[in-house]
This record gives sequence, structure tokens and C-alpha cells, in this order.
Amino acid sequence: MMSIGVIGYGYWGPNLVRNFAELPNVRVGMVADLRPERLAPVSDRYPGIAVTTDIGALLTAPRLDAVAIATPVYTHFELAMQALRAGKHVLVTKPLAATVADAERLVDEAVRRQLVLMVDHTFIYTGAVRKIRELIDAGRLGQLYYYDSVRVNLGLFQHDVNVLWDLAAHDLSIMDYVLGRTPHAVAATGVAHVAGQVESMAYLTCFFEDRFLAHFHVNWLAPVKIRRTMIGGAAQMIVYDDLEPSEKLKVYDRGVTLNGNDESIYRALVGYRTGDMWAPQVDLTEALHIEAAHFVRCIEDATPPLTDGAAGLRVVRLLAAATESLNAHGRPVDPRTLAPSV
Amino acid sequence: MMSIGVIGYGYWGPNLVRNFAELPNVRVGMVADLRPERLAPVSDRYPGIAVTTDIGALLTAPRLDAVAIATPVYTHFELAMQALRAGKHVLVTKPLAATVADAERLVDEAVRRQLVLMVDHTFIYTGAVRKIRELIDAGRLGQLYYYDSVRVNLGLFQHDVNVLWDLAAHDLSIMDYVLGRTPHAVAATGVAHVAGQVESMAYLTCFFEDRFLAHFHVNWLAPVKIRRTMIGGAAQMIVYDDLEPSEKLKVYDRGVTLNGNDESIYRALVGYRTGDMWAPQVDLTEALHIEAAHFVRCIEDATPPLTDGAAGLRVVRLLAAATESLNAHGRPVDPRTLAPSV
Amino acid sequence: MMSIGVIGYGYWGPNLVRNFAELPNVRVGMVADLRPERLAPVSDRYPGIAVTTDIGALLTAPRLDAVAIATPVYTHFELAMQALRAGKHVLVTKPLAATVADAERLVDEAVRRQLVLMVDHTFIYTGAVRKIRELIDAGRLGQLYYYDSVRVNLGLFQHDVNVLWDLAAHDLSIMDYVLGRTPHAVAATGVAHVAGQVESMAYLTCFFEDRFLAHFHVNWLAPVKIRRTMIGGAAQMIVYDDLEPSEKLKVYDRGVTLNGNDESIYRALVGYRTGDMWAPQVDLTEALHIEAAHFVRCIEDATPPLTDGAAGLRVVRLLAAATESLNAHGRPVDPRTLAPSV
Amino acid sequence: MMSIGVIGYGYWGPNLVRNFAELPNVRVGMVADLRPERLAPVSDRYPGIAVTTDIGALLTAPRLDAVAIATPVYTHFELAMQALRAGKHVLVTKPLAATVADAERLVDEAVRRQLVLMVDHTFIYTGAVRKIRELIDAGRLGQLYYYDSVRVNLGLFQHDVNVLWDLAAHDLSIMDYVLGRTPHAVAATGVAHVAGQVESMAYLTCFFEDRFLAHFHVNWLAPVKIRRTMIGGAAQMIVYDDLEPSEKLKVYDRGVTLNGNDESIYRALVGYRTGDMWAPQVDLTEALHIEAAHFVRCIEDATPPLTDGAAGLRVVRLLAAATESLNAHGRPVDPRTLAPSV
Repeated sequence: MMSIGVIGYGYWGPNLVRNFAELPNVRVGMVADLRPERLAPVSDRYPGIAVTTDIGALLTAPRLDAVAIATPVYTHFELAMQALRAGKHVLVTKPLAATVADAERLVDEAVRRQLVLMVDHTFIYTGAVRKIRELIDAGRLGQLYYYDSVRVNLGLFQHDVNVLWDLAAHDLSIMDYVLGRTPHAVAATGVAHVAGQVESMAYLTCFFEDRFLAHFHVNWLAPVKIRRTMIGGAAQMIVYDDLEPSEKLKVYDRGVTLNGNDESIYRALVGYRTGDMWAPQVDLTEALHIEAAHFVRCIEDATPPLTDGAAGLRVVRLLAAATESLNAHGRPVDPRTLAPSV
Repeated sequence: MMSIGVIGYGYWGPNLVRNFAELPNVRVGMVADLRPERLAPVSDRYPGIAVTTDIGALLTAPRLDAVAIATPVYTHFELAMQALRAGKHVLVTKPLAATVADAERLVDEAVRRQLVLMVDHTFIYTGAVRKIRELIDAGRLGQLYYYDSVRVNLGLFQHDVNVLWDLAAHDLSIMDYVLGRTPHAVAATGVAHVAGQVESMAYLTCFFEDRFLAHFHVNWLAPVKIRRTMIGGAAQMIVYDDLEPSEKLKVYDRGVTLNGNDESIYRALVGYRTGDMWAPQVDLTEALHIEAAHFVRCIEDATPPLTDGAAGLRVVRLLAAATESLNAHGRPVDPRTLAPSV
Repeated sequence: MMSIGVIGYGYWGPNLVRNFAELPNVRVGMVADLRPERLAPVSDRYPGIAVTTDIGALLTAPRLDAVAIATPVYTHFELAMQALRAGKHVLVTKPLAATVADAERLVDEAVRRQLVLMVDHTFIYTGAVRKIRELIDAGRLGQLYYYDSVRVNLGLFQHDVNVLWDLAAHDLSIMDYVLGRTPHAVAATGVAHVAGQVESMAYLTCFFEDRFLAHFHVNWLAPVKIRRTMIGGAAQMIVYDDLEPSEKLKVYDRGVTLNGNDESIYRALVGYRTGDMWAPQVDLTEALHIEAAHFVRCIEDATPPLTDGAAGLRVVRLLAAATESLNAHGRPVDPRTLAPSV
Repeated sequence: MMSIGVIGYGYWGPNLVRNFAELPNVRVGMVADLRPERLAPVSDRYPGIAVTTDIGALLTAPRLDAVAIATPVYTHFELAMQALRAGKHVLVTKPLAATVADAERLVDEAVRRQLVLMVDHTFIYTGAVRKIRELIDAGRLGQLYYYDSVRVNLGLFQHDVNVLWDLAAHDLSIMDYVLGRTPHAVAATGVAHVAGQVESMAYLTCFFEDRFLAHFHVNWLAPVKIRRTMIGGAAQMIVYDDLEPSEKLKVYDRGVTLNGNDESIYRALVGYRTGDMWAPQVDLTEALHIEAAHFVRCIEDATPPLTDGAAGLRVVRLLAAATESLNAHGRPVDPRTLAPSV
């Protein structure tokens, strides 16, 4: 019976507790939160779980095998590092850390201690995203043209991170997973609509080899909620709409055909091919349930998780580069070096 | 009875001929197209209209008061200039010309000769766009935060201009009309997916004073058709979806409220206000019908049209600056000077 | 070169004229309408077409091979009969006639004179409806469970016929075509919301053998426009939404599975099977274009059209039975005998 | 501190327990279910709640003030009657009972004992339905024309009641609440698609005075989920779509205007008035939370609940009449007398 401690019982913590509590052979041993009023509902609902406002006590509790961290981003590094040093396996909500250096140190520490370090990139565990990767891996889309994502709605302002670190973190983790490629430059633009606050809307472009382009629109100030990703390929195109209750994924047999070999700019015959649309059924199991089970399994088998520290680091690198670009008025930045890309 | 000649009978020319033909006190006197096979249906449908493959003959025909030009962009300047020099009033499809210099010369020529020069920025004559301007002018949206536009679909490739000059020309003319402001910098990114062809998808950002931002996504290679503009304001927000058959405009009583006066970055209380949505009925009259009548009226009254040469020039300036930025890997360009903006 | 005359130039007549005029080897020889003001636009647009307010003149014009009738329903019989007697092939807008007896006499007359009698059941010539029939014929849906259709919107009131004869005529012709079966009873309910007017909304149920049921909701007083047909089968189910611009047809791999053989009412295990959805591409050619060409072809080849007089008669029989049921407060009526069905 | 017992911990029972548990000054004292495996999760989640498979023990437990019953319909009467006789206030899931006689006896018993008898007509406690009633009560819709409701999806088969008792019970309770009128006749048609099972789809029509008509389509075998009610009035019309995440209610300023006074059937000028659409914000609080609090308040104040036994009885009367009509091949039945209506 594995025992897991959860730090942070605000918005996301209750979901972690519930999902771990539902797993067989796992128990949630302790929940910690600095705010005592947050702990009351834990005791009400789960009288078997110990609660504490002393986070250090949780981090060093000998009977806990693993720790899940659901706290503000700026605390991730400190808490995760302490947990690793105490010999705990660690699951941390996204993004992994607030800086590339911190993320790198966590990855190194986990490797050195042979502990599982996993990032809660929740969408990777949805049926829809797994199906997209399957389609791309099978070559169904043909040569990839672009990746376009819109994730906008009204609220919630995350006061310690801007909208990129809050919303684009999801999309970058999805892109990282389904494409398996890293851009050589990113460029971002954003606006802080409330004076003295972080950016509440942003546009981010990622540049890859082969003219492939990814673009992200994230916005906390949109009147309507949109969660839509389009992936264009030469053979097929995908529209992934996470708000669709059942048909989240639509695969279009549409594209461009070059007719003839006259490439002169005014006469090339570009034909449009339209065809059937197909909405494959996707597994609608709650992603966090699958993710929690995966975390436990990786600990048991000593195997790296799908969303390991390295994946978390890649996303942090992109976010850090995007932030640097944003501060430099959209100048492209190479996420591999975090130096301006010219 | 005013007489109008139409040059170009491809995709858009038939709409011009039909709408002018339906106006009282106006006749379409002549249609010209280089391709004789395009002229056959004109004669079939409108035996009263003279047709010719000699465009020069149309431009100098003494009985024509005005000329409407619906030809590829690179021909606009030459044809419009000849028409003005022949003393004709001119309506030219968007964009006005292929370069800023050409657009400026057309504007100057029209002023000098006291002729009406109008650009066919069709959307300005829709009920939806006029209603948006009305709402903004009345201050209903409060302080403006952003303008976000998506115009994507599959096809048609315009081989002589890239996707910005084809699709974003519409959105820039709408933005110019409803905001009445000019950005101090634009930045664009795009990709030519078919080798040797013009860019088939692009992202364009316009930067204004007061942190206001406008962003445009145009794409000829999208699997689905989207025509959606969001305009965010402190008091209200608009979603304009041109594909909605009747409720094209939705006005949301939603926004952000700053509570309290603690502006420290981690504690400011930003509240979200949600409220009713309202879809005002908009005039669904065909825009080109209203536009054709407006052109005739402006000639009769010697008044400048809503979409005069100056409006056309402003849009061309933005497109030229966007293209320069696109070629400079997204470097911001000042459309007023067309010099890189730092 | 076949020559066709068109009677009635109100809402639908212009579409008939335009589509016949676009066919090769066919000319529209004459257009008749009692209202001279309707004929003016014909002459403007098609100066080669003779116009007349004397319908008799058109019906007997020796150079016309065929006549298309687009007039109010109560005139169909008289005009079509005269045309047949004058030796013309006839295309008449739906429904074929105002009574079963009239429809029967038209069918007989056409047979006797070996002339083509075709009803303008336009939807039969759409790609979507032809694809539905193809799927049903191929047995893709398995045993059929139900046919449910909603055709509602605001207006237009047809003052000479009620909403069943106006709107349900479309749906009954589609059902007749895709199922190829005739109900043994129909029951209808409706309301005339405007005093002294015909029914403006109605519900119609058709009863078939094997517990198969078809149901129709037609309404001139709905705030929104809906055009949606669901066809449920044991293996697959279809949703046909005519308002969808491109994905008009969706085929769902969903249904019911009986598990085990315990049929006791409280314990039978009924399982639901969900699966992929597939939206086959359908031909989006204007239906009336295909229909007009089909009419001409049937005349040339002396073959019966897809929507011949017999099909028109079947639909009139259903409408007459529905009206009888409506007047008898929903009592089921057998359309084959038009007697109350018990 | 009021104490409540809950009988039945299947699909709906957990929602009752959770919502009562969250109320201040209320405790869930006991949960009973015949199936011991259903009780395990109660103890896991709420260790303070006593559990039992002996329903009689719960019904007579002296410390329980009230009982909530979430069991199959055929058990409602027996359980509710025993609870009332034991002096408990009763909340019973819809429909109140399986027969009119049983429902009447429950109402009588509650009155005689001065106990609160409430039916769980959940939708009455949603913000959307309360807003609809508010609009109708304020006369905003003008004269009412029709009420049209569609509630269809795939599954779940309720084996002890047919689809009317399962799904239409919701819609009839909503109609009863927003209209406050009772039909003088109902007619229903339905089909049992699985041999030996109850009806899985049905159409139900309710006839009122003044030509007002209500119609319901319920179906367990539809490929897509639809929850849409249209209410047509002379002045305004409502579309209520429960699947819309935020804009559940749309009010259309559309209708019919009679122009002039010529009422002759072929010439009356019926004009269509189109206007703005308005989506009022509705309270999105979980309905069951409001309902649970209302039940407690009614007990404390000894006032009748909004959905009291009388409301439950009216719905059962309509369902019983509908079933009688369904068995009589759609013959109209008067729900007030349950005799055939001629």
C-alpha cells in the first residue's frame, strides 16, 4: 500500500486527493495547506487523512512514499526539492518550476536519487490528446503545416504568473507531446490590461524547421470560452475542440494538391481537395484518474513517466523564452539557449 | 441616368454588374475582360450591356461616367489611374493598390481632378459592422482592450497576392472603420506552404497606444471556415461571427472589476463581472447593394465616400508594413513611416 | 434544342428559369404570370424570353415542348391538365395537386399520353438525401427504428395551404424516397394561430409495420430555424442537418445491444454502444440544377423521372390523410384508403 | 440540527446526500440501500453517517426528522407512505408515485398529518426555469401559442418505467410550473424498440383552451443529446437549451403581426416581426442545492414547498393519462378524469 501526501488544497488539490483516494493499493496519508480553513473540508470528507499546516512535517513524514504538490508556481522548486531530498517521489502541477535553472536542478536531483519526478500535464492523459498523437505518429496527416491553438475565457487571473504560464503551459505540453519536436525560436506579445498586474492576454508563435509554425492565443479576458486546436497537414487536418461534449476530435480529409508542374507564380494550379470528416470516439475517462494511476505505476516499476521532469523542463524552457520575447517586444528567442534568435 | 463600366468579370465582377444593374437611374454601359469566354455570359444575361476585350476602349468610352475595377491587385493602379485621367469616377476592389506609393498617387489624382475614388471595402456596408461602430462610438464598450480576428478557410489561393493582401485586407478595413485609429507598429509572421507560392497563412499584430492590441489570423489552409472577431472592452465585449445566419453580433455585459485599492501584485482583487448577452438585430441587406448606391450618391452629391481613397491608402499602408515585417521575420514596422519600429 | 415554358414568376419561378436557362440544348421559350409587374424583371434579365400574362397562350404555344408550373397549389391541377392535354411534358412544384383525385387524374393523363409528369420534390436531388438513401439501401443502419424530422422557422405564411402542405410536403417526399415504404396510418395535430387562417404549426405521425414510426414537426412560428432529421437504426443512426454549410450528414456508429437472454422486464441487460461519427462528403451542387437536367433527360429518353407523378401522388395522399386526421382531432387515418384507421 | 435519512444510493441518492450534507444546521443521519455494496462508499466518504440495508429501520428511526427517497418508481408509494405514517417529512424523487390513486393517497396523508411532502422536480430549482416563469408571469411573451420540448439522448433505459415516466416527467413538471395551467386532453404515441421492454421513445401532445398546444419528444435511442424547449408567444419567444454552458435562455423579440383588417383567407397580410435576441444571465447554482435548502426551510416554517405533493400529483395525472392514450393508439385522454376525451 503506497502512501501519498498532497500539499495545497485550493483549486486543484481536491482533485488530486479524490483521484489518488479512488486508486486501489494507494492511500492519501496526509494533506498540508498553510490555511487551516482549507483543511477542514479534508477532515470532513476524509477523516482517515491526517492534515497539517506544517508543510515541513509532511515533507519529512517517513510513512509517505510520494508527494503531490499543488501550490503556486513560485513555490514549486523549493517544495519539490525538499521532497526529493527527503527521498519522496514527486508529482508537481504545471509548470514544473518558475525558471529553467530551477527546473533543471529538479530534474538532476530526481535522476541522481533515482526518484520519479512527474509533472501534472493533465491533458496528455486525455483520450483526445492521445488519439491526436496516434494519428500523427501513424503519418495520417502527411507533412505537417501548422499547429494553431486558442484557449480563451473570462478569468481566472493567476496573480503570481502571467497568462502564458497559466494557460499556454497546457498547450505547450500538448504540442510537445503530439509533435515531439522543439522550436528553434519563439516570439510572444502580450498585454497587462489591469495596471500593475501580469499579462492577461498573449499571442505566442513557435518557429520550427521545414516552415512548420505553431501559434497560441491565450486570454483571460474573452467574453466566450474557446478551447480549439487546429493541426494542418498535407493529407489530413485535425480540429480538437475540448468543449465538445462527445466529438472532441474531428479529422478532415482535406488539403491542397499541386496540379501540373508549372510553378510560375501566376499559373501554378493549386487544387483543393475536400473529403469526408471523421470523429473517432475517444476515451472520456477523467484524465487525472489515468494520470494518478500512471504515477503510481511508474513508482512501482521504476520507469519514467510520460510527463517526466524532462518534459516539464522543455515546457518551462518555452515559457521562459516566451516571457523573454514578450519583454523584448516580440523579438524571437531561441528556447534552447534562451538567447535572442536572429 | 448615370452609366458605369465594369472591368473584370471573374469572381467579383458579376456581383458588381448585378448590383449596379438593379439600381434605379443607373445603367451598366459596358463590361470589359481580357478573356472573351468571360464575356459570353454577360451578353446572355444582359444583352443591353456592351462587352469588349479592349480595356482601353472602356476606359475612354465617353458615355461612361464611372468605372468599377474588379481585376487582380497588380493591375489596380494602372487601370484606376487611366480611368481617373479619362475623367471617370472610380470604384476599385480591395486593396486599392499593390504599393503605398501607387495608392498615394491615386488619392492625389482623384483629389486633383475632383473625382470620386472609392475602395470596395465591402464589409463596411454590412449592418453588423455599422452596428459595431455605432456601439463603439457610443462608448458602450468602455475602454478598449483588444481586437482579435480569425478569418480562415480552405482556399482560394490568390496567386498574385499573399493571404494578408487577400484576407486581412477585409479585417484591416473593418478595424480601421470601427476604431478610427492607426497602429504605431505592426508585426507579421507567415508561411508559404506550397513551394514557390505566396504565403498561405499569416498572423498579424497591430500595436496601438494605451496597450491596445489588434491581432489577425488569416489562413487559406484551414479545414473549417471561421469568421470571428472579438472586441474586448472594460464595460462590454463584442463577438462578431459573420457565419451566423441571423445573430451575427453578440454583445456581452462582461468584464473585469478591480476591487479594493491594494495593487500589490499578489493580492489585488480582480473580480469578473458576468451579465446578460444581447444580440441586436442587424440589417441583412446585401452589403454590395448599399455600397453601389452609396457610390452613385457620392458622385451625384460630390461627397467623399465612407471608404474613400484615404481609407484605401490606410489599409494598403498596413498591408505593406505587414509584408515588410513578414519578410523581416516579424520585426515590428511602423506603418506611418514603413521603417522598422524599435 | 428543347423549349420550355414557365408559369409563375413569384418566389420559385425565377429559380426554375435560371436553372433551365443554364442548361445546354435547352431554352426557356416563354414565361407567363398574371401580374405584369412580375414579368418586367424577366425581360430585363432575359430579353430573349417571351413573356405573357395570358397563361392559355403559353399552354398552347406550339413551339414549347414542356411546361414548368410554379403557381399556388390550388391551380396546379388545372394548369398541369391543360398542359398535358396540349401535349406538353410537365414539371409542377410540390405538392402535385390539392386533392388525391386531382393528383390521380394527372398521373392517368400523363400515362395515357405518354408524357413526362414530374413533381419538383427538390430535396430528392440534393447530395445529402441521395447519400441517405444509399446508406439505407446498403443496409448500413440495420433495422430501422424511427424517422424524426423538424422543419421550423419564422414565416412565410402560405395563405392557400396550411403548414403541412407547405413544409411537411418536403419531408414526406424525402421520407418516401429514402424509405420506399408507405405508412398504414397517419395522425396529425395542428393549430391556426392567426384567426381565420390556415394551420401555422403541426405535428404529424406516420405509423408503419414493424413498430417503425415517423414523426414530423413543422412550424411557421418558431423563433429559430431548424432543419434536422434523425433516422435511428439498430446498427447506425443518421443526423441530417440541412443548415450545416458543409457537414450536412452525420452517421453515428451508436445503438443498443441486448446482452444475455434474460428478458424479464426488470433485469434485461440493455447496453449502449457508442462509436465513431462519420460525416461523408456530399455533393453540394444546387439540387434544382440536377433536377432540371434530369427532367430534360427523362423527356429525351422517355424514361420516368425519380420524382414522377406516382411519387407526387403518394405525397398528396399522405398530406390529404394528415389533413383529415387534423380535422378529426388526431384520429389516425389510413392514407391508402383515406378512411379512419382503427 | 435537523436530521435526514436517505433511502436509495444508486444514481441520484449520492447527489441528495452530498447536497444535504453541505447544508448548515442539517445532518444526514442515515442512508439505506438494499445492496450492501452500495453502502460501502457512503461509509468511506461520510464515516459519520449510519448505513443500513434494513429500510424499515431507517423509516422508524426516531432521530430522523425527514426522509428523502431515491428508489425505483414502483416503490415510491410504499416507502413514502410508511415514512409519513412514522411522522417524517418526505422528499421523493420524480415521479411522485406510479399511479394517480397512490399519489392522491400520499397527498392526503401528508395533509392529514401536517407533514411536508415534496417531489424532487429538480428543474424547477434551476435559474433558467425560474427565469422563464418570471418572463411569462410578467406577460413578456404576450398571448402564448405553443410549448415544444425535445429531450432525447442515448440511454439510460429505465426498466421499471417507460421513457415518458423517465424523461417527460421532467418536462411536464417544468410546463406545469411555468404555465400554471392544466391541459384538458393529452395524446401520446410511443414505441418499444427492444422486444419485451417498455417504450423507449414517445411523442406526447397536451391540448389546452385557446388553441394553446404543448408537445414533447422523448427518446432514449437518439444518436445525439438534445435538451431544447421553445415557447412561442405573440410578443416574444423563448428558446431554452439546457446543454448551453452559459446562455441557456434566449428571448427572441419575434412574432407575427396582423396588418390591415382584410381577413379573407387568401389576402390577409400576415407580417413577420424580427428583432433583437436577449440572453438574460441566469443563476447557475446547482438546482439540488437550492432544492435541499428549500425542503429544510419548508419543514422549519411549516410552509408548502414549490413542488409539493399537489404538483407531484398533477404530473402523475398527466403521465397516467399519457400512458392510457399511448395504449389506446393515441386517443386523447382527459387527465382530469382519465377518461377518453372526445
